[in-house]
Amino acid sequence: MEATQNYAFFFVARRVNLVIIKFFWRLTMKTSAIFYHAGCPVCIEAEHQVAEALDLARYDVKIVHLGEQKDQISVAEGAGVKSVPALVIGGAAFHINFGAPMSALKG
Amino acid sequence: MEATQNYAFFFVARRVNLVIIKFFWRLTMKTSAIFYHAGCPVCIEAEHQVAEALDLARYDVKIVHLGEQKDQISVAEGAGVKSVPALVIGGAAFHINFGAPMSALKG
Repeated sequence: MEATQNYAFFFVARRVNLVIIKFFWRLTMKTSAIFYHAGCPVCIEAEHQVAEALDLARYDVKIVHLGEQKDQISVAEGAGVKSVPALVIGGAAFHINFGAPMSALKG
Repeated sequence: MEATQNYAFFFVARRVNLVIIKFFWRLTMKTSAIFYHAGCPVCIEAEHQVAEALDLARYDVKIVHLGEQKDQISVAEGAGVKSVPALVIGGAAFHINFGAPMSALKG
C-alpha cells in the first residue's frame, strides 16, 4: 500500500513539475518572428495585416526596415530572404506578396 | 446632493456598460483569416509556421484545402488569391512564398 502511495505521489509531483516548467517556458521562451520591409506600399499593407496578426504571447515580433538598417540586409539574406516584405519565423523565410527584390535595397 | 448621486450612478453605469460591450465584442467579433493551400510542401510549411502563428483571440482562422474543396477556388479568386499558399486577412490576399498557381488546381 505504501509503495502504491509513493508511486502516486511521484506521478502527481512529476505532472505538477511539467506544468510549472511548461508555464515558465511559455512565459519566457518565445519564437522569434522578424518582419523585413522597405517602406513600400505592399510592405506596409503586409505589416499592418500579417505581422500585426501574430500572437504576441507566443512570438517575439521585430520589424526591420531594410532601407534604414542596411546592415541587416546580410542577416536577412542569410535567413533566406530574397524579396520584401518577408517574415522570418523560427529561422524559415516566408515571402509575402512582392514589394521589391533584395538587390534594389543595396543601392 | 441627490442630483450628484444620480450623475455618479449614470457615469458608473455607462462605464460598466462600455466594458461589458467591449468584452462581448472581443469575444464574438473576430477578424476572418482564411489560409488557402493545396497540400504541397511549401503550403504545409507555411501553414505550420504562418497560419498557426496568428492570434486566435483576435482572428477566426480557417484552413481551406483547395485540392479537396474545389468549390472554394472561385471564392479564393474573388478575394484576389492568384497562387497557393495564400492568406486572406480581412478581405486582403497575401501570397506566402509560391507553391502552385490557381490554374494548376482547376484540373
